Amino acid sequence: MGDQATPPAPELAAMAINDGPCLKHPFSDRAPVRSIVCRPDGGAGLAGQRVRAGGWVKTGREQGKGSFAFLEVNDGSCPANLQVIVDAGVADLSTLVQTGTCVLVEGLLKVPPEGTKQKIELRVDKVLHVGPTDPASYPIPKTKLSLEFLRDHIHLRPRTNTISAVARIRNALAFATHSFFQEHGFLYVHTPIITTSDCEGAGEMFQATTLISEAEKLDKELILNPPPTEADIEAAKCTVGEKSSVVAQLKAAKATKEDISASVSDLKKAKENLSRVEERAKLKPGIPKKDGKIDYGQDFFGRQAFLTVSGQLQVETYACAVSSVYTFGPTFRAEHSHTSRHLAEFWMVEPEIAFADLQDDMNCAEAYVKYMCQWLLNKCFDDMELMAKLYDKGCIDRLRMVSSTPFERITYTEAVQLLEEAVRGGKEFEKNVEWGIDLASEHERYLTEDIFKKPVIVYNYPKGIKAFYMRLNDDSKTVAAMDILVPKVGELIGGSQREERYEVIQQRIAEMGLPLEPYEWYLDLRRYGTVKHCGFGLGFERMILFATGIDNIRDVIPFPRYPGRADL
Amino acid sequence: MGDQATPPAPELAAMAINDGPCLKHPFSDRAPVRSIVCRPDGGAGLAGQRVRAGGWVKTGREQGKGSFAFLEVNDGSCPANLQVIVDAGVADLSTLVQTGTCVLVEGLLKVPPEGTKQKIELRVDKVLHVGPTDPASYPIPKTKLSLEFLRDHIHLRPRTNTISAVARIRNALAFATHSFFQEHGFLYVHTPIITTSDCEGAGEMFQATTLISEAEKLDKELILNPPPTEADIEAAKCTVGEKSSVVAQLKAAKATKEDISASVSDLKKAKENLSRVEERAKLKPGIPKKDGKIDYGQDFFGRQAFLTVSGQLQVETYACAVSSVYTFGPTFRAEHSHTSRHLAEFWMVEPEIAFADLQDDMNCAEAYVKYMCQWLLNKCFDDMELMAKLYDKGCIDRLRMVSSTPFERITYTEAVQLLEEAVRGGKEFEKNVEWGIDLASEHERYLTEDIFKKPVIVYNYPKGIKAFYMRLNDDSKTVAAMDILVPKVGELIGGSQREERYEVIQQRIAEMGLPLEPYEWYLDLRRYGTVKHCGFGLGFERMILFATGIDNIRDVIPFPRYPGRADL
Repeated sequence: MGDQATPPAPELAAMAINDGPCLKHPFSDRAPVRSIVCRPDGGAGLAGQRVRAGGWVKTGREQGKGSFAFLEVNDGSCPANLQVIVDAGVADLSTLVQTGTCVLVEGLLKVPPEGTKQKIELRVDKVLHVGPTDPASYPIPKTKLSLEFLRDHIHLRPRTNTISAVARIRNALAFATHSFFQEHGFLYVHTPIITTSDCEGAGEMFQATTLISEAEKLDKELILNPPPTEADIEAAKCTVGEKSSVVAQLKAAKATKEDISASVSDLKKAKENLSRVEERAKLKPGIPKKDGKIDYGQDFFGRQAFLTVSGQLQVETYACAVSSVYTFGPTFRAEHSHTSRHLAEFWMVEPEIAFADLQDDMNCAEAYVKYMCQWLLNKCFDDMELMAKLYDKGCIDRLRMVSSTPFERITYTEAVQLLEEAVRGGKEFEKNVEWGIDLASEHERYLTEDIFKKPVIVYNYPKGIKAFYMRLNDDSKTVAAMDILVPKVGELIGGSQREERYEVIQQRIAEMGLPLEPYEWYLDLRRYGTVKHCGFGLGFERMILFATGIDNIRDVIPFPRYPGRADL
Repeated sequence: MGDQATPPAPELAAMAINDGPCLKHPFSDRAPVRSIVCRPDGGAGLAGQRVRAGGWVKTGREQGKGSFAFLEVNDGSCPANLQVIVDAGVADLSTLVQTGTCVLVEGLLKVPPEGTKQKIELRVDKVLHVGPTDPASYPIPKTKLSLEFLRDHIHLRPRTNTISAVARIRNALAFATHSFFQEHGFLYVHTPIITTSDCEGAGEMFQATTLISEAEKLDKELILNPPPTEADIEAAKCTVGEKSSVVAQLKAAKATKEDISASVSDLKKAKENLSRVEERAKLKPGIPKKDGKIDYGQDFFGRQAFLTVSGQLQVETYACAVSSVYTFGPTFRAEHSHTSRHLAEFWMVEPEIAFADLQDDMNCAEAYVKYMCQWLLNKCFDDMELMAKLYDKGCIDRLRMVSSTPFERITYTEAVQLLEEAVRGGKEFEKNVEWGIDLASEHERYLTEDIFKKPVIVYNYPKGIKAFYMRLNDDSKTVAAMDILVPKVGELIGGSQREERYEVIQQRIAEMGLPLEPYEWYLDLRRYGTVKHCGFGLGFERMILFATGIDNIRDVIPFPRYPGRADL
């Protein structure tokens, strides 16, 4: 039973025999560039092997008076390119050498002449595919392009060295995240994106709705098929009156059963028509309203729904049942922030642990951050070298330091004392330091970058600046919250032990002027089998900024969304 | 530097010495139940060890005239409970024995008397925490509860045997997904949730907007601070006229520079006030409109935005740059389907492979499904046993069969022939079978469940029933699409080789009556360095239904969203 569309390539079978098992991609007819050049010997040991390789030409040049061409080919599997040499007899070199051209080639791996950077090169004898690129119109030519420029070509920017390296680092951190929590017995829980529970923060939330599109659909329908007029309704009423009289007359005249029942049936039809007309007369163009307000009863979920700002409250329902869980998904803020640190759509990692307190929370968060740093050193060293070269020469040392140094742990009160000391010593901050303030980024970075020169966990914050669900400490002034501050980005993680005492959390909700009703389900977790538990949230893009040293958060997410911009 | 909120438990240090390294949870002061009972010996070898364990009481009973209690405690780490025995002298037994009570207890592990089911039990000498549950009001008592009933208690249902087992199976399949693709060199790419690109399908998409909340904010503001009246505007205009005359008069009268400049400054202020008043007069309550249509220029992203229905088109931009990628995230459909197979929010896995054709695509999809089945057999066997017992006695055999049997591969044309043969043989379908139809679920299930009794890949579908981006075969009638059909759920995977030829795809878009402009970025992937590539999508919840045999998709996602319902 053959596949007409895709005849099997006869070369493939032969190649599979010649290739080492790790060279051929399992679901593609080529060897990833990584499997050739990312070896301890730079690939030299593969000399003599026949391989098929594909990718996009980074740079190409004709040499020897056009008798052959050198191509630097990259397939995104690693930052290094494969050096490819094609003779003029094999293919049209002028197309091949253009930056952006896609090639699939086959040939023998050879050790290049001494003095070249590469340890291996591919001598091509077959060109199996060419996807040409017109250099005159290609939006991302070989010249150095700014990250800002690349944001206007979001569909092509992963072909650049920086954005592909960021993609590999992001991928590595995502899998490190899953590996860390899975190794430690946490269950991955998919908390909802569309939520009806974060009712108080509606101002900064996106609404998920079908009301507008339904209204637009109705508007169109009403233009094609206008609603009944007053006269139409009157006419329908009139018909009902007439039919009704006929029935009465026939009954009075003791007409035959058949005649009466025919007239009753006519009356019934007239009544049905009237109610249809009256129903359609109620249709109003625009978004449905009730008592002057938007009628969310007619929205898709029968109520107002938003895009989640955090999965924490929902993931707690799982922690209070299966003990150790985490969520890792997209979250949303409709803030009009035009900064290099904010996105309207970003990814968060939020673990939640039952039978655990604030110390456990800090231990977990510290272990997780260290694990990610070590993971990058182990698995993405070449990408990190690129980041060190292009964006932040200290980034590799920073990963080493964080992965190996115990984080400093200080209370909020101690942090404020240290900052006040610094002020007395002449340090100037834009925002005044005093007990009770929410630490600003400048304070956080001073603590981690200047005072301790390593990650700092600040814990036990004043209750006035923290959320209602954080556990009230015995001093009644502070809550069991903690933030992890790291050099370069400041706050990377925020977490807390959750208030597990029913009476206390109920009172905290009231104190903060929040309505109780929307939190009844959350209170149930305390009403029935309450458990000490804690958790934290890590902004995933913040972690990538921290690791790579890249400045703008829009460059570390594949498809950045911010005010005025949502490409693709 | 102490933590006032959480004094270290002195017992913990002692316990850590006695415990084996795998017993203590790394970030919690207890041993997961799994680490005690899920051992080849059922935990018997741990007899004599001192442990701390926590969880929720599944069932409890007082015995020996109230002198001690048996508790079955579960912490969600595995389907098995830990049997716990507490003497009356240690704690108030009447609270402990209630279903739903949370306990954290410490004691010695002992081998129970012969004849009991358990291989180990915990003899408690310390009760460290009790989170009581009032049996009179607890929404999910010990009695057997239907899955439908549990959907009304979504925040407590993970405490049940079924929903916690589903959570572990879902977690296992999610991590299996990441492991499979990572092992094979794919990069995980986060495609966007908010999208502006799937413009044609707007009818079934949720809109993500701030227009409604901004309009509501403006309405409130205009009530507090009404917009200027015509009279206000006239008055402001009048003031400008007056101030203007003053300037003219002073200039004519050759007044002092100071006087003139003071009058000019007055005029400037009057003009500013006028433009402010005129600006505010333009404010209209309700959603902003332009030319009779909603003015999306004023929405958060400056254009209409939706929740994604698939990340495929966007992930292709990465495949055409870094070769092998996958996305795994939430997707949305605003369909009013009230079936057991549809959700408004569900998770999809979508890999995309460059330098690969339809055969590679099928190979990858088959390997992935087999990998997941084997993973469940290896890692969730106890949960699968629960599913076999409660929902589908064949589910374990099905996993074994799928993980070990090569999938049947037939063309669409062959599939239609087989179905037509079946009809001739007396089989009745609701929907008529003929070449060109979109196979219905009844046809798909007949192929996989009755004819082949194993997974079937159907490929090369008529182009008329498939999307524009699927590669046109040489027959010009079919496209290189494939669906994987499995027993129990029918279609599990849909995929295709993508059309990489610029002229062909452009023509296909036109043929289907779609506008070209929104796809210019997608066409760029073919314009510049085009590459043969393919991919597929797997509905993650479908996979869980297939694995567990559970009937309703609302029971295999933690927070189901469907028409009229979005709890929490």
